[in-house]
Amino acid sequence: MTVGILMGSDSDWPTMKAAAEVCVEFGVPFEADVLSAHRMAVEMIDYGKAAHERGLKVLIAGAGGAAHLPGMLASVTPLPVIGVPVPLKYLDGMDSLLSIVQMPAGVPVATVSIGNARNAGLLAVRILAAFDEQLLTKMTAFQENLAEVARAKGSTVRDGAAELRKS
Amino acid sequence: MTVGILMGSDSDWPTMKAAAEVCVEFGVPFEADVLSAHRMAVEMIDYGKAAHERGLKVLIAGAGGAAHLPGMLASVTPLPVIGVPVPLKYLDGMDSLLSIVQMPAGVPVATVSIGNARNAGLLAVRILAAFDEQLLTKMTAFQENLAEVARAKGSTVRDGAAELRKS
Amino acid sequence: MTVGILMGSDSDWPTMKAAAEVCVEFGVPFEADVLSAHRMAVEMIDYGKAAHERGLKVLIAGAGGAAHLPGMLASVTPLPVIGVPVPLKYLDGMDSLLSIVQMPAGVPVATVSIGNARNAGLLAVRILAAFDEQLLTKMTAFQENLAEVARAKGSTVRDGAAELRKS
Amino acid sequence: MTVGILMGSDSDWPTMKAAAEVCVEFGVPFEADVLSAHRMAVEMIDYGKAAHERGLKVLIAGAGGAAHLPGMLASVTPLPVIGVPVPLKYLDGMDSLLSIVQMPAGVPVATVSIGNARNAGLLAVRILAAFDEQLLTKMTAFQENLAEVARAKGSTVRDGAAELRKS
Amino acid sequence: MTVGILMGSDSDWPTMKAAAEVCVEFGVPFEADVLSAHRMAVEMIDYGKAAHERGLKVLIAGAGGAAHLPGMLASVTPLPVIGVPVPLKYLDGMDSLLSIVQMPAGVPVATVSIGNARNAGLLAVRILAAFDEQLLTKMTAFQENLAEVARAKGSTVRDGAAELRKS
Amino acid sequence: MTVGILMGSDSDWPTMKAAAEVCVEFGVPFEADVLSAHRMAVEMIDYGKAAHERGLKVLIAGAGGAAHLPGMLASVTPLPVIGVPVPLKYLDGMDSLLSIVQMPAGVPVATVSIGNARNAGLLAVRILAAFDEQLLTKMTAFQENLAEVARAKGSTVRDGAAELRKS
Amino acid sequence: MTVGILMGSDSDWPTMKAAAEVCVEFGVPFEADVLSAHRMAVEMIDYGKAAHERGLKVLIAGAGGAAHLPGMLASVTPLPVIGVPVPLKYLDGMDSLLSIVQMPAGVPVATVSIGNARNAGLLAVRILAAFDEQLLTKMTAFQENLAEVARAKGSTVRDGAAELRKS
Amino acid sequence: MTVGILMGSDSDWPTMKAAAEVCVEFGVPFEADVLSAHRMAVEMIDYGKAAHERGLKVLIAGAGGAAHLPGMLASVTPLPVIGVPVPLKYLDGMDSLLSIVQMPAGVPVATVSIGNARNAGLLAVRILAAFDEQLLTKMTAFQENLAEVARAKGSTVRDGAAELRKS
Repeated sequence: MTVGILMGSDSDWPTMKAAAEVCVEFGVPFEADVLSAHRMAVEMIDYGKAAHERGLKVLIAGAGGAAHLPGMLASVTPLPVIGVPVPLKYLDGMDSLLSIVQMPAGVPVATVSIGNARNAGLLAVRILAAFDEQLLTKMTAFQENLAEVARAKGSTVRDGAAELRKS
Repeated sequence: MTVGILMGSDSDWPTMKAAAEVCVEFGVPFEADVLSAHRMAVEMIDYGKAAHERGLKVLIAGAGGAAHLPGMLASVTPLPVIGVPVPLKYLDGMDSLLSIVQMPAGVPVATVSIGNARNAGLLAVRILAAFDEQLLTKMTAFQENLAEVARAKGSTVRDGAAELRKS
Repeated sequence: MTVGILMGSDSDWPTMKAAAEVCVEFGVPFEADVLSAHRMAVEMIDYGKAAHERGLKVLIAGAGGAAHLPGMLASVTPLPVIGVPVPLKYLDGMDSLLSIVQMPAGVPVATVSIGNARNAGLLAVRILAAFDEQLLTKMTAFQENLAEVARAKGSTVRDGAAELRKS
Repeated sequence: MTVGILMGSDSDWPTMKAAAEVCVEFGVPFEADVLSAHRMAVEMIDYGKAAHERGLKVLIAGAGGAAHLPGMLASVTPLPVIGVPVPLKYLDGMDSLLSIVQMPAGVPVATVSIGNARNAGLLAVRILAAFDEQLLTKMTAFQENLAEVARAKGSTVRDGAAELRKS
Repeated sequence: MTVGILMGSDSDWPTMKAAAEVCVEFGVPFEADVLSAHRMAVEMIDYGKAAHERGLKVLIAGAGGAAHLPGMLASVTPLPVIGVPVPLKYLDGMDSLLSIVQMPAGVPVATVSIGNARNAGLLAVRILAAFDEQLLTKMTAFQENLAEVARAKGSTVRDGAAELRKS
Repeated sequence: MTVGILMGSDSDWPTMKAAAEVCVEFGVPFEADVLSAHRMAVEMIDYGKAAHERGLKVLIAGAGGAAHLPGMLASVTPLPVIGVPVPLKYLDGMDSLLSIVQMPAGVPVATVSIGNARNAGLLAVRILAAFDEQLLTKMTAFQENLAEVARAKGSTVRDGAAELRKS
Repeated sequence: MTVGILMGSDSDWPTMKAAAEVCVEFGVPFEADVLSAHRMAVEMIDYGKAAHERGLKVLIAGAGGAAHLPGMLASVTPLPVIGVPVPLKYLDGMDSLLSIVQMPAGVPVATVSIGNARNAGLLAVRILAAFDEQLLTKMTAFQENLAEVARAKGSTVRDGAAELRKS
Repeated sequence: MTVGILMGSDSDWPTMKAAAEVCVEFGVPFEADVLSAHRMAVEMIDYGKAAHERGLKVLIAGAGGAAHLPGMLASVTPLPVIGVPVPLKYLDGMDSLLSIVQMPAGVPVATVSIGNARNAGLLAVRILAAFDEQLLTKMTAFQENLAEVARAKGSTVRDGAAELRKS
């Protein structure tokens, strides 16, 4: 496995699944599991410590509220850890964001936008792509495709504008 | 030892010392040490797991930014853990507060006000006092004294007001 | 009674009930009542002053907005007071949180996460457990069970991941 | 006395004094004292309950952090209570503001801007002036004077602008 | 008329009506109207300037977003102005609150909690009651009734607790 | 074309359309298109660089989250750029607002309220009207009409008040 | 005069002067004065109403806290109004920003970054430049110069980096 | 060069230099330069587009306020981009953080804590280390050293505690 996708509970899967889908999209081997900083502290540390020896290159961790999983994993692995702030019922994910991004000097977490596990997946792919010519080409193509899709959406707006002008 | 006071770095000592001073004030045995969630994860977990067996009754943990120490300790000890949000250079401790207080259901942290280690110490004493008649009497006396001091401060204000009236 | 659960209105009961349920779960005697800081100030103070004499060991108080109940109770009892920030219609409980947690030096309130009365109950149990071997064993078992449940949830995620890989 | 100015500690006097100065300015009899919600709960309630019988017409209360004094006073007096959010070391008074202004339906506090005890004094005078022709005339004159002063300040700006144009 | 209730649009009426209902409840004569700071600036100023001459004693103004009505009215009347921060679609009324409460020294607005026009009405009644023995008695009765109602709500909670204990 | 209305995706059109409707209302020629800072960076820069040469006088750009379109356009055009903070699923548009308004010295963006594309359109018209007597007259009439409409809404409120009085 | 620069007090001049300096820099005639929404409401409205008749094309208004000047001016002039959120002692200008930018539909204020009067001046110049070929050329040159200066700053960083490498 | 460190101005160098120092510490070749999104848009895009062809593996970009550099670079390079929110004079870097982290799906930025360029450097090293056994060993040693240093700091706290006990 190349990418490990971790989360505190299966209730995070609907959010975190988007990271896994990116891996599938780019043909990157991944594993996904529940690993709770607050309920499985020892297993979490064991997982983190062993990750690079098992061949993993990047870890993605999603958590909400007092979100400790990404930072705790980063503290025990030398690998890059990507944190996804999962928004809970209150505060719109602002607590999750600050709990993940505001790590002290020495232990970085690569934080992406609130609830945006897709970007966590894409960041993992970029990291791998920096050392994999083929993946780099795929990422470039993916970005070109983003542009195509954006351009295509222009017609909806231009048509809407044309209609307004007639009215 | 009855109370354990933990912090991520010796730079937190000037803030956290106030908790220790309360212990001295109330004659409660305590220990204080550096225990970093992000730099000494395994030791932190070992400390937490063994705390109640060593006779500790309450843990106090101070941390700033993405403040994981109180919550991580709470996840491995059955004892009550009091969290002190230590304010860092930016955000006035709001990140520390949310990282400590917003714990998921199952693992509570008793959070006190930003930078207020004195209150963490007093909360620890209240917890002990609930099961210690003598300490309870001391706490009641302490509170009565707070009132005395507050009352005494009234004269400054009354005098200031009198002066203003004359002007 | 060992634990007193107070709230400003019966509209807080659906939130605060979770604290009572924890007491039932752990076999801890509790009482629950409406006690409004803003509508029953004198009764509130009387309740707080008499609490420890009636054998109560911990008070749990829930309140929203300009949430004064936990802090006012803490000012008249020597017992530990746990505050639950109840979120109102606006501001997602941020006002409730700050009104409860930001107590001045001298009068601590043990604040838990927004809307999380379950954690208030668990914190009360931890406080009692520190002085009750049997309860401590129960709390340790409870925590081990949390881990079991979390581990069990892993299969949902692993299955979801497996399915994605096939697609 | 007509106006009562209360605060939790003499350390609030430098801030709250501005309210007293307004009273002097407008010739309104006032008293000022320390009255701590968290340290003198019973006295606070006694003061609030008796205030209108002693002839007081308006109460002004300043408090910081988990600021309970204005709201608690409002809960025991039928008089209008003006709250001044006193900013503490962290959070710029946002906690004080929310703790004072976000009162539940039934118990209003007339909140003024952060740290602005002068406005609390002026609001008290307006309240009195609504029922005192002479005071109303004074307030109108005061407002006209504000305009005069503002107008006078225009020359500084116009001169500054003229200088810039020449440069 | 004694109390004037103003708002920027009829869409604020469902919120602001609660202030009018309090006036009815306490038998206080009131008027209510649309008066937009941003759309009827001149009329607004004329209304404010004439208010006290027309016998009005208190103005209540509700506004949302960049909420200028309460502050602008306060700048042209010597009467006390009560501001109600009306929450809009975004930001939960935080913008409305700050736009109303953060008035510069010289021009106070008596701000109540977000969306709480009922409290604005009650504050107006308190202001009037300070100079009207009968109204003062009514307000005291109203407050005693608040306590009665709160006490009555206790049985719901006590019954709920009893039921939990049996389960 | 006189006004260019740009947005990062066709999903912004329902929000941004209000700017176009204002243009239609005032008879101002406009164009609207998708132009994504993050997906079409080069085209965006080309569009911005050429805008004034194509006769455009004002650009309106809407964006959400890390909203870079308005600021990036402003960096490559000498024309005034109006930014509309589009609120996304979390944070109520606060991230969009700060990403747009907090531009460094040298490159201003004229920011309007969150989600308020109508105001962006009206601001564009004001800019044009400053140099177009006829448009200025239209804008003055529009403002007078706002007042008319606001005045008309008064009857709803006055009727509602009358009804309350009778009840 | 082409640009009017207004502020509530001469204490805002040190901040607002930067807008005037831009006018000087670009040879744009301007006037600057104190005009207080809260202390000179009638004059403010008179100024706003007459502005376009006096030949002014753009108004710049700076204000802090409950900042009403920009929005009130915008409500009485058909000209574009640029708002500068002036930061006060508390809240870092967040109150000023929200009070200025969150205007209701119908009355836009072109808001620039907190304390950034220089950008207000540059935005005014852009507005004028859209209708003045010569000014447009100047603005383009100004922007090219910004790039030159930025490029020149690169050597400091490159030299710093080189030095680090040697160490 | 392996790592590119970019910033909008040489005034960011004192903050961003910490990232360069990490590169020196770990023997990672790096370049550092000024590259302003708002003043050198075209060069920025050219730099981003060419980065991977020049052999760069990771980009680090620091920016403040409406911080567009990290996100804009990420939009034109397939490489991982690390964003450092540089705090400006107001808002404590909250605007910088949100402008960098809240990127839309498709274009991730790996955001680190406010003002923490050291962590950006360490994250870059982790990314490289995932594909470089030797660097991985260095990172593991670095982390072990962090623990050593933290442990060593414990004596300061333990001594401080001992002293308090004696007093």
